[in-house]
Amino acid sequence: MKIKVGIVGATGYAGAELVRLITTHPQAEVTAISSVSFLGQKLSDVYPSYKYLNDMVCEEQSDVVEKSDIVFAALPHGLSQELGAECIKKGKAFIDLGADFRLESEDEYEQWYQGKFLDKDLHKEAVYGLPEFFRDKIKGKKLVANPGCYTTCSPLAIAPAIVNKLVETKGIICDCKSGVTGAGRKPTQGNHFPELNEGFHAYKVASHRHTPEIEQTLSKLSGEDVTITFVPHLLPVNRGILATVYADVKEGVTYEQIRNAYEEYYKDEYFVRLLDEGKCADIHNVRYSNFCDISIHFDKRANKLIACGAIDNMVKGAAGQAIQNMNIIFGLDEKTGLEIIPPAF
Amino acid sequence: MKIKVGIVGATGYAGAELVRLITTHPQAEVTAISSVSFLGQKLSDVYPSYKYLNDMVCEEQSDVVEKSDIVFAALPHGLSQELGAECIKKGKAFIDLGADFRLESEDEYEQWYQGKFLDKDLHKEAVYGLPEFFRDKIKGKKLVANPGCYTTCSPLAIAPAIVNKLVETKGIICDCKSGVTGAGRKPTQGNHFPELNEGFHAYKVASHRHTPEIEQTLSKLSGEDVTITFVPHLLPVNRGILATVYADVKEGVTYEQIRNAYEEYYKDEYFVRLLDEGKCADIHNVRYSNFCDISIHFDKRANKLIACGAIDNMVKGAAGQAIQNMNIIFGLDEKTGLEIIPPAF
Amino acid sequence: MKIKVGIVGATGYAGAELVRLITTHPQAEVTAISSVSFLGQKLSDVYPSYKYLNDMVCEEQSDVVEKSDIVFAALPHGLSQELGAECIKKGKAFIDLGADFRLESEDEYEQWYQGKFLDKDLHKEAVYGLPEFFRDKIKGKKLVANPGCYTTCSPLAIAPAIVNKLVETKGIICDCKSGVTGAGRKPTQGNHFPELNEGFHAYKVASHRHTPEIEQTLSKLSGEDVTITFVPHLLPVNRGILATVYADVKEGVTYEQIRNAYEEYYKDEYFVRLLDEGKCADIHNVRYSNFCDISIHFDKRANKLIACGAIDNMVKGAAGQAIQNMNIIFGLDEKTGLEIIPPAF
Amino acid sequence: MKIKVGIVGATGYAGAELVRLITTHPQAEVTAISSVSFLGQKLSDVYPSYKYLNDMVCEEQSDVVEKSDIVFAALPHGLSQELGAECIKKGKAFIDLGADFRLESEDEYEQWYQGKFLDKDLHKEAVYGLPEFFRDKIKGKKLVANPGCYTTCSPLAIAPAIVNKLVETKGIICDCKSGVTGAGRKPTQGNHFPELNEGFHAYKVASHRHTPEIEQTLSKLSGEDVTITFVPHLLPVNRGILATVYADVKEGVTYEQIRNAYEEYYKDEYFVRLLDEGKCADIHNVRYSNFCDISIHFDKRANKLIACGAIDNMVKGAAGQAIQNMNIIFGLDEKTGLEIIPPAF
Repeated sequence: MKIKVGIVGATGYAGAELVRLITTHPQAEVTAISSVSFLGQKLSDVYPSYKYLNDMVCEEQSDVVEKSDIVFAALPHGLSQELGAECIKKGKAFIDLGADFRLESEDEYEQWYQGKFLDKDLHKEAVYGLPEFFRDKIKGKKLVANPGCYTTCSPLAIAPAIVNKLVETKGIICDCKSGVTGAGRKPTQGNHFPELNEGFHAYKVASHRHTPEIEQTLSKLSGEDVTITFVPHLLPVNRGILATVYADVKEGVTYEQIRNAYEEYYKDEYFVRLLDEGKCADIHNVRYSNFCDISIHFDKRANKLIACGAIDNMVKGAAGQAIQNMNIIFGLDEKTGLEIIPPAF
Repeated sequence: MKIKVGIVGATGYAGAELVRLITTHPQAEVTAISSVSFLGQKLSDVYPSYKYLNDMVCEEQSDVVEKSDIVFAALPHGLSQELGAECIKKGKAFIDLGADFRLESEDEYEQWYQGKFLDKDLHKEAVYGLPEFFRDKIKGKKLVANPGCYTTCSPLAIAPAIVNKLVETKGIICDCKSGVTGAGRKPTQGNHFPELNEGFHAYKVASHRHTPEIEQTLSKLSGEDVTITFVPHLLPVNRGILATVYADVKEGVTYEQIRNAYEEYYKDEYFVRLLDEGKCADIHNVRYSNFCDISIHFDKRANKLIACGAIDNMVKGAAGQAIQNMNIIFGLDEKTGLEIIPPAF
Repeated sequence: MKIKVGIVGATGYAGAELVRLITTHPQAEVTAISSVSFLGQKLSDVYPSYKYLNDMVCEEQSDVVEKSDIVFAALPHGLSQELGAECIKKGKAFIDLGADFRLESEDEYEQWYQGKFLDKDLHKEAVYGLPEFFRDKIKGKKLVANPGCYTTCSPLAIAPAIVNKLVETKGIICDCKSGVTGAGRKPTQGNHFPELNEGFHAYKVASHRHTPEIEQTLSKLSGEDVTITFVPHLLPVNRGILATVYADVKEGVTYEQIRNAYEEYYKDEYFVRLLDEGKCADIHNVRYSNFCDISIHFDKRANKLIACGAIDNMVKGAAGQAIQNMNIIFGLDEKTGLEIIPPAF
Repeated sequence: MKIKVGIVGATGYAGAELVRLITTHPQAEVTAISSVSFLGQKLSDVYPSYKYLNDMVCEEQSDVVEKSDIVFAALPHGLSQELGAECIKKGKAFIDLGADFRLESEDEYEQWYQGKFLDKDLHKEAVYGLPEFFRDKIKGKKLVANPGCYTTCSPLAIAPAIVNKLVETKGIICDCKSGVTGAGRKPTQGNHFPELNEGFHAYKVASHRHTPEIEQTLSKLSGEDVTITFVPHLLPVNRGILATVYADVKEGVTYEQIRNAYEEYYKDEYFVRLLDEGKCADIHNVRYSNFCDISIHFDKRANKLIACGAIDNMVKGAAGQAIQNMNIIFGLDEKTGLEIIPPAF
């Protein structure tokens, strides 16, 4: 019998991507979807590409909870805490694609999101769903905070060097570039085609909310308090994030040591592809898939490690990773439903 | 046991797309690939998006034939006739994605392709693989001429009106717009990014080789000698063809009659999605899938039917349709391996 | 002394393009601009590319009229009639980039725009500002209806064939493709980057308001009542319109006759570039300029003339042509301020 | 009388852009152009956007020298040294858009370009043509090494902080992103539309030839030996470079001090636009112009200065800056021919 999946916020980009991926998942099925803006309407009216393939009608949030074994929430920040509590109370698994459960420190949550933890105990039950780092903690859990897009890509790119103490944890820079779907479905002046097309710029420089989340992950991995500089940029493409991460290589450490560390660290990770020396990670090669391509480069003149990580922000950076987490929770092979070959063009 | 698939010309765009789609086909597997340009090299070196997912090495064409139950040829025009003959002789099925077996008239082949039929009997065995029209003839055949991209999209858009004698067969215009992958993998000045990006133009106006192929299909469907005007244009997008087809509506025919004819004609066709009145077919909504979206419009002032058909030129216009044909030949459900939901973005 | 130019609706795309072009016009200067949405704000806050180059503040519409010799109105349809009347009363020249004065028939205006002529006499004073056809009528006039983008490009492409009676005036088809700026500055779902990018579709099929305007022009040129089929499509590029116009060639007419007619008709037109035989007009080659590139093609098999016309929809299709009209009104060389070389990339 | 300008290598992108800009320069005129690949052909056959506007025919290089007061060379690296020597000998001014004269150290030239200084004295006469830093040295010179694109943008972004000793000169990172025209006109697999479109990746990580050139400039400005980490990336857009430059802020230095330093340093620079606090430099806003937009950002948590600089790589990063240098050499106002308003869309 298939896992019954409910998707709250199904008409946003992350929600719609979840629907698409779950629909072809061999051991799960979408049983109900909700949307505040499109209540009573068909998802395929919002996204005509789904016509005949998913013509489900958006219901109330409460109906979605009722009908599901697991609820995915793809909601604006701040709207998941109550829903999560309700799901847990009713024995449903809950995966939040928003930020409400990602930060362990309420202080940081307040500082970056201007919100409070409604139920501190519930937050303690939440696990941060980046399987390549925290797989063992996810197993058997019911409440997963699915990481953001930048916060998946940046730590994956630099983790092996940090875990193995090959680079300094001070002064790390994450210069990230994201496709536009990361900004969501709502039209804005900045994402109006003629104003974004043929443009490129940074935004929320050193003030983006993914900063503390990346730091939390890197701090856990390193056992040290890590503060990073995070600068996101907006790419005129639909999908993909490239994180170019810079770290100071510790004295005496060689490229070979670093390369070995990466190979060892990711040797069993299906979704991480470490590229051969001389290659550069490209968002083009991971589109529509759950892969994270990583290339590492050594600037011997300045003694810097430069690690590039590329993901599809809507898959490994959102819906795909959420399904990976679901697979872990339900004891399935992590790859189930996610063995997608990225198109070559 | 899975069908053993060999792909000749695997490093071109159509070949690479075939590899991608066959790799996830539940009842077929790629057993060998060949490429003249990349002999001895891994496909994933040519297309890094396939890394670890298909690292097959390009072999000689003859080895591919030997190892396969069915051979797909994605070769430049003129190179498939001998290969097809060899395959048939050895009892293999053969699907040609090139043009060598598409035209039934050797005169037309000579006129448009400057070539001869090497084996006239072999040409008689070939069937034109547009399943929505010629499904019954494909069953049990071993030699299929897979249609070109424009030649799939244009007839699908206008067929119900022609079959039902609702429009004149004189003066039909196919104004088509194609994404760049249709021009192949080889870099050219015209497809160099800075010269195509932000540009749009017609090419081979009223002289493109797909002209006689469209006419052949429409003539068969109508039982009349059809001559069309075909003007292709190049879109600055990767994938997709939109055919805007114009035909004169016969006197007295109403929009409702036309609409009914389309609904009836395509009512059992999984891969054809007739859009609701008022909607317009968009290549965005069929990308990476085998669907053909069709919208029909009636210009009452000028008494014209305007039918828009949208496909992914590399899937329904090439690799996907070839697999659809393979499924028919091997008695599988036509949809097998092709139930892909087009991404919403 | 420079011509004092006022621009009403300066923060829309057409208005902003006017500001840009007038600012480098050697014999005109922008003296005031207005905007309802950005009253009191600097234009360069809306368009940061203008920073330091035009930091004018948006004033009230009435102040703009007061300070100007000529007023350009780039307003939504329906808002120009009163403004035009006021300008004329005060002795100002008035060029309307909207549709209010374009149609001579009030019936058609009512049918397509659901509006009335507020002052029928005023409408009689208005001249349709397509200089290549109506230059003599524009001279000495004060009230010019600047044509729309599709309505500039399509008639320019087919005019010589019509004027010289080389093609039938029945059954003309204008299959047009426009860049996104034509849809204006206001963000919409359809022009949200991820939903337009990699997409292409027709819209307002056989029901776009430019239809009667094209017909009006072609009827005047031919002396016959022309009804066309007009189908616009949306291109994922910023600028440019390609009109592919189809017409039945009259019996006995040769390609050479048609070519000669085009050469003769446009021989003194600086802004029309008739391309050599075998070339195809490309929007890439006219971007940011006031040129209209035209290529003509003869489908001998179907006896159709195919004429492609390419313009920059914001320049020859809006602001540039408006300036061309201003130059005529004020007795300047028509090219003044418009001798722009389109960038090669 | 106008300055007679000769352009060697006119059919490459930088050469073609020079032709375009010089053609509208009020005090200079293109008198001759050359191209090895297109000898005897019209420039407008290579770039149809120039049709009728510049139909000059490509001549021999020697003829270009003969007919000109100043020669611009837009040649592949290594081909300018002899040409430069010849021009100087004949009393012509010479501006090299290639790299042959940019590096002052022959050792570095050998290391990065595998070449020798053919005439060491000639190299001493050469001046590095980044006017905002070295204007006084350019005046009266005849031999100018025009900087590369990355090497213009990166130093402009960080110079005021370095000159005023507000940041450390160790550990500076230049994370740069360039449009495709920077890679030239020759089609390559990587710049083939379907493979670049919707992609983004780094290249030549920490090994790009612009590295020593940026270091040379920053070393001169700071009076210290500066080593940087330089990582270029390829953007799927035609034009523009964004340099995101990271530097450690010295202890005790405040944002206000930095801001004041930038305002003071660039207060008289027409081509540098320092954006208001909170704004981010965007390549969209400088396209087709000679401006460099700069935004500065302070990461207080990590004590980093982040400076973003945006230019059009073909204008301020190539042809425009070359003309700026010509204007200085010939005693003209530096802005002459370069007062271009970047289009808003």
